This record gives sequence, C-alpha cells and structure tokens, in this order.
Amino acid sequence: MLVVSAHAADYVWRAGGTIAKYIKNGAEVKVIVLSYGIRGESNDLWKAEGATAESVKSVRAGETNAAAKILGITGMEFWDMEDYPIVFTREHDERMVRAIRAVQPDIIITHDSFDVLNPDHNQTHDFVYRCSIMSNSAGVRLEGTKTTKQMRLFGFEPHQTELSRYVPGSFIDITESYEQKVDAMKCFKAQSHLIEYYTQRAFLRGNHARRISGNNTYKYAESFANFFPVVGGELY
Amino acid sequence: MLVVSAHAADYVWRAGGTIAKYIKNGAEVKVIVLSYGIRGESNDLWKAEGATAESVKSVRAGETNAAAKILGITGMEFWDMEDYPIVFTREHDERMVRAIRAVQPDIIITHDSFDVLNPDHNQTHDFVYRCSIMSNSAGVRLEGTKTTKQMRLFGFEPHQTELSRYVPGSFIDITESYEQKVDAMKCFKAQSHLIEYYTQRAFLRGNHARRISGNNTYKYAESFANFFPVVGGELY
Amino acid sequence: MLVVSAHAADYVWRAGGTIAKYIKNGAEVKVIVLSYGIRGESNDLWKAEGATAESVKSVRAGETNAAAKILGITGMEFWDMEDYPIVFTREHDERMVRAIRAVQPDIIITHDSFDVLNPDHNQTHDFVYRCSIMSNSAGVRLEGTKTTKQMRLFGFEPHQTELSRYVPGSFIDITESYEQKVDAMKCFKAQSHLIEYYTQRAFLRGNHARRISGNNTYKYAESFANFFPVVGGELY
Amino acid sequence: MLVVSAHAADYVWRAGGTIAKYIKNGAEVKVIVLSYGIRGESNDLWKAEGATAESVKSVRAGETNAAAKILGITGMEFWDMEDYPIVFTREHDERMVRAIRAVQPDIIITHDSFDVLNPDHNQTHDFVYRCSIMSNSAGVRLEGTKTTKQMRLFGFEPHQTELSRYVPGSFIDITESYEQKVDAMKCFKAQSHLIEYYTQRAFLRGNHARRISGNNTYKYAESFANFFPVVGGELY
Amino acid sequence: MLVVSAHAADYVWRAGGTIAKYIKNGAEVKVIVLSYGIRGESNDLWKAEGATAESVKSVRAGETNAAAKILGITGMEFWDMEDYPIVFTREHDERMVRAIRAVQPDIIITHDSFDVLNPDHNQTHDFVYRCSIMSNSAGVRLEGTKTTKQMRLFGFEPHQTELSRYVPGSFIDITESYEQKVDAMKCFKAQSHLIEYYTQRAFLRGNHARRISGNNTYKYAESFANFFPVVGGELY
Amino acid sequence: MLVVSAHAADYVWRAGGTIAKYIKNGAEVKVIVLSYGIRGESNDLWKAEGATAESVKSVRAGETNAAAKILGITGMEFWDMEDYPIVFTREHDERMVRAIRAVQPDIIITHDSFDVLNPDHNQTHDFVYRCSIMSNSAGVRLEGTKTTKQMRLFGFEPHQTELSRYVPGSFIDITESYEQKVDAMKCFKAQSHLIEYYTQRAFLRGNHARRISGNNTYKYAESFANFFPVVGGELY
Repeated sequence: MLVVSAHAADYVWRAGGTIAKYIKNGAEVKVIVLSYGIRGESNDLWKAEGATAESVKSVRAGETNAAAKILGITGMEFWDMEDYPIVFTREHDERMVRAIRAVQPDIIITHDSFDVLNPDHNQTHDFVYRCSIMSNSAGVRLEGTKTTKQMRLFGFEPHQTELSRYVPGSFIDITESYEQKVDAMKCFKAQSHLIEYYTQRAFLRGNHARRISGNNTYKYAESFANFFPVVGGELY
Repeated sequence: MLVVSAHAADYVWRAGGTIAKYIKNGAEVKVIVLSYGIRGESNDLWKAEGATAESVKSVRAGETNAAAKILGITGMEFWDMEDYPIVFTREHDERMVRAIRAVQPDIIITHDSFDVLNPDHNQTHDFVYRCSIMSNSAGVRLEGTKTTKQMRLFGFEPHQTELSRYVPGSFIDITESYEQKVDAMKCFKAQSHLIEYYTQRAFLRGNHARRISGNNTYKYAESFANFFPVVGGELY
Repeated sequence: MLVVSAHAADYVWRAGGTIAKYIKNGAEVKVIVLSYGIRGESNDLWKAEGATAESVKSVRAGETNAAAKILGITGMEFWDMEDYPIVFTREHDERMVRAIRAVQPDIIITHDSFDVLNPDHNQTHDFVYRCSIMSNSAGVRLEGTKTTKQMRLFGFEPHQTELSRYVPGSFIDITESYEQKVDAMKCFKAQSHLIEYYTQRAFLRGNHARRISGNNTYKYAESFANFFPVVGGELY
Repeated sequence: MLVVSAHAADYVWRAGGTIAKYIKNGAEVKVIVLSYGIRGESNDLWKAEGATAESVKSVRAGETNAAAKILGITGMEFWDMEDYPIVFTREHDERMVRAIRAVQPDIIITHDSFDVLNPDHNQTHDFVYRCSIMSNSAGVRLEGTKTTKQMRLFGFEPHQTELSRYVPGSFIDITESYEQKVDAMKCFKAQSHLIEYYTQRAFLRGNHARRISGNNTYKYAESFANFFPVVGGELY
Repeated sequence: MLVVSAHAADYVWRAGGTIAKYIKNGAEVKVIVLSYGIRGESNDLWKAEGATAESVKSVRAGETNAAAKILGITGMEFWDMEDYPIVFTREHDERMVRAIRAVQPDIIITHDSFDVLNPDHNQTHDFVYRCSIMSNSAGVRLEGTKTTKQMRLFGFEPHQTELSRYVPGSFIDITESYEQKVDAMKCFKAQSHLIEYYTQRAFLRGNHARRISGNNTYKYAESFANFFPVVGGELY
Repeated sequence: MLVVSAHAADYVWRAGGTIAKYIKNGAEVKVIVLSYGIRGESNDLWKAEGATAESVKSVRAGETNAAAKILGITGMEFWDMEDYPIVFTREHDERMVRAIRAVQPDIIITHDSFDVLNPDHNQTHDFVYRCSIMSNSAGVRLEGTKTTKQMRLFGFEPHQTELSRYVPGSFIDITESYEQKVDAMKCFKAQSHLIEYYTQRAFLRGNHARRISGNNTYKYAESFANFFPVVGGELY
C-alpha cells in the first residue's frame, strides 16, 4: 500500500485508522508526504511569536513523525515541497512514477478528485492519478524501474464532504486501530480543532457502516472514494 | 441471493453468469420473475399468426424455464403480472417483503434505478428497494416472518448504459460460467438479436475488468451497479 | 408531428414557432391539450368577479383555439382533464397509445423531464414517454391500432431553465414563423406577463443559435431537450 | 414557519435547534407530524414484550410531545398516517393545502428531495412540494381558504448525506438553542443511537459554519437544503 | 466588495446593477480588470481599418472607464494581461493575494466555475478562488499584508447558462440601479449585440425573482452562483 | 472536417468509419496526429527485444499510415509530440489555431472532455477546444490566417464509456464503410486486443442506433459526444 498525502497531517485525519490496521495485519505501507503544510495548514503555529518557515517546519515534522510512529509506519518519505499552492513539474512526475514502481502497490490512497476548500488536494489528486497511469505503461522508460500492474486507487474524504460532492465508495472498519488513530491525531497540536472533528467522524462513519451493512460489530470506520469499480469473483 | 427480474429474460441477459457461478459455488439463489414480458418484450412472438396472450406466455415460460435449468436455478417463482406498464400495489409490497424475509438474502440483485428505454425496469427498481427497506424494519409486522438485516443490493446493467446514466460499481468474473450463460441466452428465440449483443457484452466487460484490475485471468465478466458502498475490513 | 401539452398554453409559449414553421412547410401537426389549466395556470382569470370553473374554461378554450388558428393548427384535441394536480390512469395510457398510433408521428414534442415549478409538467412527461414506449411494442394490443416505430422525442423548455436543470439539445430557427408566434401568444390575456417573457426568449435563443452555429441568419429560435441522441448519416 | 415531518422525531433531529431558536425569537411555528413512525422508526420499541401498534404509538406520541414542549412548540398537529410506506391521496393533498393556507408561512421546512434510506421521506418531500405549489394557485379553490404567496422552502438533512446527494444550502447557527435541542432529542428513548449522532452533527455543522463564514461565534449549527435560490436586496 | 473581471466588460454585463446598488448604498467596491479583452472580446473593433492592439486597447479602456464612472466605481485597477488565452503565474497569484488582503472584502464576485464558451473565464475562476484561499492562510507570508477572514464568494452568470451548467444561487433586485446598468452597458459599442441581450436578462431575472420569492416589487434582477452555502442566524 | 488525435491510433478506433464515409462522399478530411503514442500506447511493441523509441515510432508510423491509406485519408499531419504526459505550450496553441484556420472546418472531431483512463486525451480535449475558440476570434492575430466561423465539435468515445461519464450525442451509420474500418484497425498489431473490442463496438452502436431511431438499415455505427446542441431548421 502506498499513501500520498499533500500535507503533513492529511494521511492521519483521513486514513490513519486504515493504515494502522493494515500494518497491524502485516501489510507494507509506504507514506509519501509531499509538503509540511507550512503555508496552508499551520495557522496556529504562525501565531507563535518569532515563527519562521524553519520553526514551523520543524514543529510539523516532529508532529507527523510522532504520529507515524504511533500508527506503526516505518516507510515515511518527505518531499518538502512548497504548499499553497503546490506545483508539480515533470520532475515530480518522474519521481512519483519511480516511487510507485519501487513499491509496486496493490493499493494507492491519496486525495479524492475535488476538495472545495483546498486546491492543493485537487492538484495532488491529479498528480498521483496521472503518475499511476504512467507507471503502468511499458513505454514510460525509467532506468532501474519495473512497470506496475493496474493497482486499486482510493480517495481520502475531504473536510466538507457534501460541498465537495464526495461520495463514499468504501467503508473500512477501524475498530481495532481506533485508539491508535486518536493518539496519532493528538500529535498535531497546531490543528487541535480537527482532533475532535475527526474523532467524531470515526463514530459517524461507524454508524453509517453498521447501517448499510447490517453488521453491528463495526464501531468506528473510515470512508474512501473508489476511483474504479470493484473487480473480482464476488459481490462485496 | 435473491434476484428480482421484471420480465422473463432480464435476469439471464444481465446476471446469468453471476447466478450460475454463485450456484456452482454452493450459494442458494432464488429468482422471482414478475411478468412474462408478454406485452413489452415479446415482439417477435406476436408476429406469429394467431398469437394470443396465452400462446405468447406459454412460449416465454418455456424459454425462461429452460434457461433457468441451464443456469442451475431451482428456486424460480413467477408472479405473472401484466407488463407495459407493470403496476405495483400494497399487496405486491407485502408479498415481496414476505419473499425477502423468507429468503433472508445476503444479496439482492434487481434492476438499476434508471433504464431510459424501459419504464417497467424503473418501477421494479423502486418496488424492490422500498420492500427491502420495509423488510428490515421490525415495525412492519407480517405474521410468520422474521425481520431481515440490511442486505447488499446491486443493479442490472440497462440495455443502453450511457443514456441511462449507468455506472458500474462491480465487475464479476464469469469466465467459469460463461458457456452456461451463452447456452441459457439461446433459449430466448423471441429476442434473438439480444443473444449476440449480450455475448459481446461479456467480452466487453471482461476487457474492462482486466484493464482496471490488472488481472489478466478475467476473460468474461458482468457488471452491476452498487446501491451502497462496500463495507468491511478491507479495500477491494 | 404530435405535440402533447399539459395545459392550454404550454405548446404556444414553448413550441409555437416550431409548430407554425412545420405546418407552413407542409407537416401534419396534431396537438393534444390535456387540461385547460383552470386550476393551475389561470390566476388572472380567477380575479374576475364571479369567476367559475366553467367561465374560466370558456375563456381558456377561446384563447387556445384562437392561438392554434394563428399557428395554422387544424388537429387540436382537448382532453379536459383536471390540473393541479394532473393525475393519469390506465385509461389515459390507453387513450394516449391509441392517439400516438393513429398519428404515427416521426416526432413527439412534450414537456421535458423536470420543471422545478410545475409538477403537472413532470407527470405529463412521464406519461407521454411511457406511452410512446408502449406504442412501439407489438404486445400492447389495442384493436384497430398499428404499432409505431421509434419516433424522435423532444422536451419543451421549462420556465426557469437553470433551476430545472434543463439543457438544450436542439435549437430551431423560427425566424420565418416568429410573427405568428408572437400573435398567438397575445391570445392568452390571462398570462400577459408571459408574452413579453417568451418574446424575449425567442430573441435570446436566436442569439445562442447564431453563436454556436456561426450562422447569422438565425434571428429568433426555440430550444428543445433531446430525449435521445441524433441518429443518422451525418453529424449535425 | 411551517414544519412537516414524516415521522414523529424527524423534525427534532434535523431542525430542532432552528425551530427552538425561531420560537425564542418570536416566530410562530407550526409542526405537522404525518405519522408516528410506528412501522418504520420504532425498532427498539417493538422489542418490548407484548408490543402492539397501540402501545408503540402511545410511547412515540408521549416522546414527541415531550420534545415539542422542550422546543417551545405550541402548534403540533398529528395526522396519524400509516408509515412504511406512507401513501398520499387527493384527500391528503387537499388537507395539506388547507393547512398551508391557514398558516400562510414565510418558510416551510420538510424533507429534502432524496433520502437513500427512507422512501417515506422522499414521498413526503414530493407531497409537501406539490401542495405548496397548489396552495399558491388561485385556481385551486377550497372554501374558506386564502391563496398563499410563494414561500421559501428548505429541506432537512437526510441521515447519510453523501449517499443521498444532499448539498447544504444554508447553515443556521443554533448555539443559543443547542441545549434545548439536546434535551428534546433525549426524549426519544427508542432511537437512543441517534441522540449522540445528531449531537455530534450539531458540532460538525458548527465547524463547517465557522469555516465557510469566518465567523467564530458559531458553535453549533444545523444545515438545510435550499429548494430555491436566495432572493433579495443583498448577497448573503 | 471586490470584483474580478477577466475582460474589460464582463463586470458590467453580469454585475453592473449589483455593483451600482452596493455603491449607492455606501459600500466600498473595488474592481480589478485583468485584461482589456483585446484578443477575445473585441471582434467588432478589429473590423476597423488599421486597427492595432494599441488602438483596440485604447477604445476598450475608454469604454470601460466610462461605464465604471456611470456605475459609480472609483476603485478600478487594470492589470493589462493578454487574453485568449489568459495565463496566470505565481506572480499573479501573489499580486492577487496582496489585492485581496488590501481590500479585506466581505464579498468577492468573479467568474463562475464553468463557461462553455470562454476558457479565460474558467481560468480566472480558478485563479481567484485559489488566491482567496491563500489569502486566508496565515502561512502565506507577504510583507505588509494582513490575513483575511473567509469572505463570501459569488460567480457571474456565463453567457449561455444552461450549456455551462450554471445554477443561480442568489438573485439581487437591481430595480433601483437598472437605469445605471443600461447606461453603462451602452458604453461598449464594440459589443453592441450584448446590450440588448443583457437588458433583457435583467427583465428575465426580475421575472424569476418575483416568481420564486412572491415579492412583486422586484422589477429587474441579476443572478449569481453561490460558491458556499448561506451561513447565519436566519433562513433567507 | 478536421480530426485531432492524441495518439497514432485513436482516430481509427473511434472515428475510422465516419472518416472513411465522409471521404467516400466527397468531404475533405484532415487528420492531425499529435503523438505516436510511443510511451503510452505501445506496450506490446516495447516487449520486442531491443526496442527503442525510434524503433517503436517507426512501427507506429507505419501502422497509422497504412490505416490512413485504407480509410482514404490524404491529409495526415504528424506533430511527433511526446506522450504520457502530453504537454501543450503557447506554441502548440498557435500552431493549432493556424491549422484550424487553414482548414476552415465545418466539423472538428477530437477527444471528449473526460477519459478516466487517459490523461492525455483530457489534455488534448482542452487544447483543441481552447484553440477552436481562439480561431474564431478576430483579435487572435496570426499573419496569413483567416478567422473561422464557429464550427461544430464532436468528441470521440473513450474506452470505458460509463466510468468516463460519456454520453453519446450522435450516432453515425457506418455500414457502408465498416469493412474499411475493420481493415484499418487490423494495421495496429501492437494493440491487437483492441481490434476485436472496437469491431464489436460498431455492432453495439449499430444496435443502439436502430433501437432509438426505428431505422433498421443501420447495421454498424459509431457514436460521438456533441459539444454543442444541434442548431438548424429541423429537429433531427
């Protein structure tokens, strides 16, 4: 599994429970954090007297590393791009194709196609999607890499789902990793208002998951958009 | 699994491969055929000299029974409703809730929400959906029945998918039951133009299934709309 | 060509120019007016002292007959149904199928699928659409009728197009019949505010028609929704 | 303000804070409860030994009256219709038009156009909407009533918003009536799982309201769909 | 209020009445015109013999300044960018963020998200939207500027609304400033066909505004798309 | 007619029958192939031992020239751009505007707005669309060129139509050129799996065309998206 997060905390709010659960169950999970979110997602840190880009980055790096450790993530990679706006070049494309081919993921999770409040998330979606398609193509020649097979792709929930026309395609039961997720979220002191928000969301999605599955053991859940239909031998 | 088909052949064209496969793998599958499609889907039979509603019904019943046998279906039920238009009353609601509660299905497959060319399909969708929700509710008291748990619901492909705004949510590999499906379709001599059409569709959906899954063993497939997101412990 | 209008004036506001033009060019056009719009579209007439259903109907019938005459329509049929709400039964279905089969139309024009301000229009759309499909089906047996071939179907513009999610599929140049349309509209004294509205609309649609076709001879136009794609030997 | 609720508790979960606030600020609010939700929304009550339709209704009536009292509602009206499914006839249409004309509301709040899990809500939406349009029409003659002017219409949030394609059009700050809403919700012991759910939702919508308005005094909120655009002298 | 217009006349056609009204009522309105529309919206001017980019710009500047004067605008700013296509760089982003922060607007009006006939409008939408979000973020450090609070954002009507999937979210009564708008539009001699078009549109939107509000004092109106829901203490 | 194809084979799979038919009937058809699809659509060719960009290009060029010859195309132009990703600059814009103005086409066919599996197709759509609008504008001054009038624009079918939200707007009967199309497709040995796919698609679209037109002479067809409504003197 490969997770691509535009900013330092996105992967925790939206997929921390799923990541922790997969790791717990033996999956290899690599997380690429494109930017530290210094410009766009560190409002509280800039209120500190004498805050600088370096001081903010240092706090954000510490927070996200602490969160990653709680979730059990060993494969973190920071690209340290500027955010707000995040701008992708051909070099980033090549780097991402290399990363995807190195991981050979069954699953990629990244931002969904539209977040009404965050253009960086939209750019990141387009970037990861484009690179996943290039990664599968034998004609995209990059020395030392091996073409991938089509992987499954999923999108994070945006913050205001309805305004972003977000439609859940999959609910993942995170009851077993819920405590880890809550602990990981608590690392992000600069976005403290989001901790309660995403804690409640796990409860909300747990309610939804029980309701539409009839399975009452699901206590907490995360939801994701499906880029593609489900393909296989059974109807899930 | 419960399958509800508006007319005598719908379940074969759209889900014959999946039904046969589930049966082959040990599932119990019940199929309810609401009408014989005498008025709406028997154009060729009416060309026969002296055709009457009874003679058409007799041919259609023979065809669909033959097809069902090939697919391995033992639990067929014919409601013998009039079609074009198909009209549902409170009595039909109650009968369907009883049927759902008797089967206690994990999966219901019926028509998807919109078929641009067939109002009966749309009515059937609304009917089955409404009854599935009533079936789950403890307050809908019907003697001798037991409330169901929320089952998974899937929609058949309509004939002209794009004009019906149909979006596949699941592809089912039917390679192992493809021959059965083709043989079952051949029973419907009155709709011979559809046999080649749906034979090609299995090829088309197989191509799609391979392309978006990266799994090249899928040779033939059927697609279905998902009424609900996938819920569970994993990302499919 | 068959035109089905829910109320006494709908066909004039939305298709009067097209109807007059087709007639002028030799087409046979039959118009069915389902209701006189006594309850829903005669607000001004009810302000007259002593107004009764009969007096309102009499005024509306006079107006619509005068308008029809100006447009050159010879085949008018009034069903005199109650409106607000308009309610369709199996008998109406049968009557409409008979009407369609009698006309054997190449084109049917009626209300589009959604009018945010007029539930009667939506019911009429569903009714005509359902009957057009039944009319094509050989199994819908009605003595003395002959099954139709699939005709082309078009939808009137609703009053507030954007809120009704209306999308024009066809623009018809009505420059040659514009004067007739304006004169016909002037017959409806009870809805005088709509005369200027639909006069301007002909100008607006003329502007749109020129802009997207590059043809500057189009001065006035009407637009319609297409129920189906265009099929033929050329790209129009 | 007129509120129309399909079942006994819908108006509390979805609009209790707004209702209480309007009443507190001097508005007259009438609430019509169409059914007690005996069949569709009383699962827990049916678990009680010896439960009957009468005993369930009695509990639900007691609960909803207690909640209404907490919210300050004096004008409650119970129609005691059967639910699951709720079925509307011409008599209900007439009764609702009379009710609307008696209230002469500036605002009507009822169910939004689509709730993926509750067909009764959808039927109720269509019913109230149709009647609001009939109420405005001078030709819909009902002795002793006075035609209304076009009122503003708003839709309740459905339970699973994204799957119901719900889009908030208005957020109402309910900070001042939040405690009342929570107390009112606690009356519905048969749907205890929903109390926490809708308590959290007030927090969630408060977060959204702050984020998109920049106004940090909004602590708790409710959201509603707008049936129509905002019309007036200013951009809100 | 801040208005951002891709070309020299867009703000007049689509928002001239609203701007004049706000100014009349004491609001401070700043208008930024990104380009003179020399390449894309000056067809008639290029027909003049000997026309050059300079001569066309000179005419357009004169026209738009005259129109602005009639509307009462004192704060005009011309960026003199090239159009068809309009291309935005990081420098433009920074300049716009500075402009937004200087104005500290409650309201920004610019192009809506999709105009089927004008890619410049779409680019401008994305640009202004992105910059409004950056402007609100404390981490986007620009010396001498002060972070904004989330403002309300509205979109202009595109020329062909239905094809652009435009949905009005707000109607503004411009009866009191209608004459000013008409006079201002008359300044644009190079786009004379649009003067009648947008004059009629004010009439059309006035009709819509009356119909959906029940308020018959609205004679002329402009409509706008709402980027966000309405947030506040009341249902508008 | 002008056809713009992102890769070397796109125009054959999606429009080969229509192109051949138009040529047969005397139309002038120019085809611009932007890239040879070396990186994105030549997977099988890269499996050959020792394959290089040059060797792949050489095979692709040979194949597409052979196909063009079968279809009767005399005006081919290769831009030899890199694909996966295809990136457009101002120079490409100018070159395309020049090409459009040189051809003065009545019809442009290119990729439709969204192909879920091919970002190059989406970029190409945006590029051609933008240039078509620039081409019509008198202010886009390019020496030696003559402004075009608004032409009609159509979009190719994407590979997985439903996932790409593709909706056919036009079906073209290709019965008379079907054999040519099949022969032309057979030239692309590197994409052999697509030959059967698009052969079946001609059969599928033929079925659709017959069904929605009632014209049984249509045996094979191609479908296209309409960028604009149909404008003219008749309802097609």
